[in-house]
Amino acid sequence: MKLQLLIVLFLITGTSRAQDQDSVMIKKIFDHTLTQASAYEWLRHLCLSIPPRLSGSEGAQQAVEYTYNELNKIGADSVWLQSVMVPHWERGHEKAILQTSNGSQQPLTITTLGGSVGTSEEGITANVIQVNSFEEFEKLPASSVKGKIVFFNYPMNPTFYNTFQAYGDAVKYRWRGAMVAAQKGAVAVMVRSMTQSNDDHAHTGSMGYVDSITKIPACALSLTAVETLRTILRKDPSLKVTLIMGCKLFPDAQSYNVIADLRGSEKPEEIIIAGGHLDAWDNGQGAHDDGAGCVQSMQVLKTFIELGIKPKRTIRIILFMNEENGLRGGKAYAEYAEMNDNEKHIAAIESDAGGFSPRGFGADGPADKVEKIKSYQPKLEAFGLHDWEKNWGGADINPLKPLGTVVVGLVPDSQRYFDYHHASSDTFDKINKRELELGAASISSLVYLLAEYGF
Amino acid sequence: MKLQLLIVLFLITGTSRAQDQDSVMIKKIFDHTLTQASAYEWLRHLCLSIPPRLSGSEGAQQAVEYTYNELNKIGADSVWLQSVMVPHWERGHEKAILQTSNGSQQPLTITTLGGSVGTSEEGITANVIQVNSFEEFEKLPASSVKGKIVFFNYPMNPTFYNTFQAYGDAVKYRWRGAMVAAQKGAVAVMVRSMTQSNDDHAHTGSMGYVDSITKIPACALSLTAVETLRTILRKDPSLKVTLIMGCKLFPDAQSYNVIADLRGSEKPEEIIIAGGHLDAWDNGQGAHDDGAGCVQSMQVLKTFIELGIKPKRTIRIILFMNEENGLRGGKAYAEYAEMNDNEKHIAAIESDAGGFSPRGFGADGPADKVEKIKSYQPKLEAFGLHDWEKNWGGADINPLKPLGTVVVGLVPDSQRYFDYHHASSDTFDKINKRELELGAASISSLVYLLAEYGF
Repeated sequence: MKLQLLIVLFLITGTSRAQDQDSVMIKKIFDHTLTQASAYEWLRHLCLSIPPRLSGSEGAQQAVEYTYNELNKIGADSVWLQSVMVPHWERGHEKAILQTSNGSQQPLTITTLGGSVGTSEEGITANVIQVNSFEEFEKLPASSVKGKIVFFNYPMNPTFYNTFQAYGDAVKYRWRGAMVAAQKGAVAVMVRSMTQSNDDHAHTGSMGYVDSITKIPACALSLTAVETLRTILRKDPSLKVTLIMGCKLFPDAQSYNVIADLRGSEKPEEIIIAGGHLDAWDNGQGAHDDGAGCVQSMQVLKTFIELGIKPKRTIRIILFMNEENGLRGGKAYAEYAEMNDNEKHIAAIESDAGGFSPRGFGADGPADKVEKIKSYQPKLEAFGLHDWEKNWGGADINPLKPLGTVVVGLVPDSQRYFDYHHASSDTFDKINKRELELGAASISSLVYLLAEYGF
Repeated sequence: MKLQLLIVLFLITGTSRAQDQDSVMIKKIFDHTLTQASAYEWLRHLCLSIPPRLSGSEGAQQAVEYTYNELNKIGADSVWLQSVMVPHWERGHEKAILQTSNGSQQPLTITTLGGSVGTSEEGITANVIQVNSFEEFEKLPASSVKGKIVFFNYPMNPTFYNTFQAYGDAVKYRWRGAMVAAQKGAVAVMVRSMTQSNDDHAHTGSMGYVDSITKIPACALSLTAVETLRTILRKDPSLKVTLIMGCKLFPDAQSYNVIADLRGSEKPEEIIIAGGHLDAWDNGQGAHDDGAGCVQSMQVLKTFIELGIKPKRTIRIILFMNEENGLRGGKAYAEYAEMNDNEKHIAAIESDAGGFSPRGFGADGPADKVEKIKSYQPKLEAFGLHDWEKNWGGADINPLKPLGTVVVGLVPDSQRYFDYHHASSDTFDKINKRELELGAASISSLVYLLAEYGF
């Protein structure tokens, strides 16, 4: 009886001492990050000193070299580049002109959707038919669509609290719009930008084609352009729009995932990933999407090294290439992981929801591992990390799920994300240094707990 | 036994039905606010069409009239103005010039602290002594301070997660700096702006004097100016700064709290307050501080009326005057409340921490009421309101505490607040419409629960 009591007491003491040490270390990680981080300056360089870094571009290559060098400078145990062949699509020039029946003209702000086919040099000029949903489109006779530009005006639903839910609901128009419209003979498609910000920035993003359906050009309108078009269309249904889009698909290009390790001291074969994606849409600077996630991940390594933390398990930073239009980097890494039996990928964390004030983590994968991740909430609540309910990893790390890896997504406040997402407004000045650093410290803290305790 | 079981089942069913109805109503409130709110447009008017609204100013008077009229238009049961005499201080012109020993000059961005005495027209020109803390100042002989301008360079501590904690820690230099410095014969005081944003905006705020100590002029330096001054001071300790401050205190002015009621249907004598403060520092537009809180409070009433919600208890919107430099509005209202025995102020909510993404509520007052407030967390978590741990009301409503009123503060994300607080950068463009509306809906929902269930 007494021995049992002693054991119980010892266990309690042991646990609470571990908790105390964890709290001390987590506070240290936050303090260090909030005072010594390089994340903000790295992001400044990525955004302002390197050209846009869409896969296959010169900017992407420069970003690979820059981050490779910085990770070496930090003092990672090893830094390497994983070769990935990526799609290489270029936007070229783009222009939309609205012409009313009485001949007056005005420009509409558009952005070509990623992967779209272009128009001829003189462009496409056609009447516009506005449709509010696929259901409404279904009911239209092909004769009323044929030869026209279809304008899908489906808004992001403001009543979804989490803006990612509204995005998920609306983004099918961006992805499927061209395919749906072409089946009834449309000559091009315009979609309402996936945003709730009433401004003149148009938001791009990937779109789909299938070989069995004619490929028609596709673009997104800014909400200002949507308002202009809707208003004039109401009075002048026979207005025309000219779309000139010079985009082009080139052969696949050589690119890389950038990977850096801090080797584990006790179980080096157990890998914990922290990452983001290095590619970004070419119309902006990719500050929130996903420069933020990249520099936060790099900061994890820097914080560990500067604080002299020797992780028990290996911490691997991955800056994935080609999340936006192909996911080739994420897939290639998962293939590598599957083939390497001598490594066990126990957890992967991705930050790809913007550099906003962090609110928690989502986790997806084996139930026991998800529970374990969620059990860390009390250790992190003091830093605003209250939201652990989402089942959510990240596009680049989700391909690791079949290996039994638990995939974890940083959950920042979502309210402003789609104001900037995939638009020319996603620029460095939209980043708050402190919010960015809090995200980095949150990831570092969870990485610390995972490296310490594993599963 | 069976009867007991039945009662238990009935209670469970009754409770869960109430919860269901509450959830439905709260969702309705959020949906309505996120699609139909006027808060953002009211704030646009307050910020952009009305001059700065420091107590006693023409702008403050216009703000009183504007909000009075808007509350009437919404359809409040009654709208009235509570007379309050307020301090009337005007900034006038202000200028700081740094002069090096070799005669070169450069301007430093300053803002006069609220309530400061001014300088003569030619200003004060003196050497500067930089001090990092009161403790350091204590050790200085009076001879090294006499005739100089004291520069208190105490930063907001970046390692406090909640920026209000860092503000609370640093703001004593703004409040007491002039008194402390004058006691050793300083001719003026400059403090580091209470911000963590490395930019050239200076942050004002109220300061203190006592009659027994010489009143010396006081201003705050932008962080850019701090960096300039520090850098040059290191090489050139005998540099001089000229401060020219044209501020002036006028006799107290007539002003008002703006008050609007939606009368309770069952217990009209029980009052639930939602409010913010209408006055704002004159160097900016007072968008976050506290135009946001005012329009969010007004929106509560509009939402109730448009949704046809008949509150069981009376909802009272109060736009307090003079929070920034006197708290006369809050004190006057508490006096009114104390004298009116036929009204019972059961709860008061204030939004005065910026129009940022809401994270929860703080509550202070009788323990049972605080517990009751916190018990509502599960009903509101779906809207990101996870943080209920603070014991926190608001400056204007805290004077109600002696009446047994529970005082409640909306807790928005604090990370960006002090980037703009009391600075010329606190402008309408810093407001995100959706975040502002989420705050309004959060307050409306808590007001709904309080009006429905009371204590």
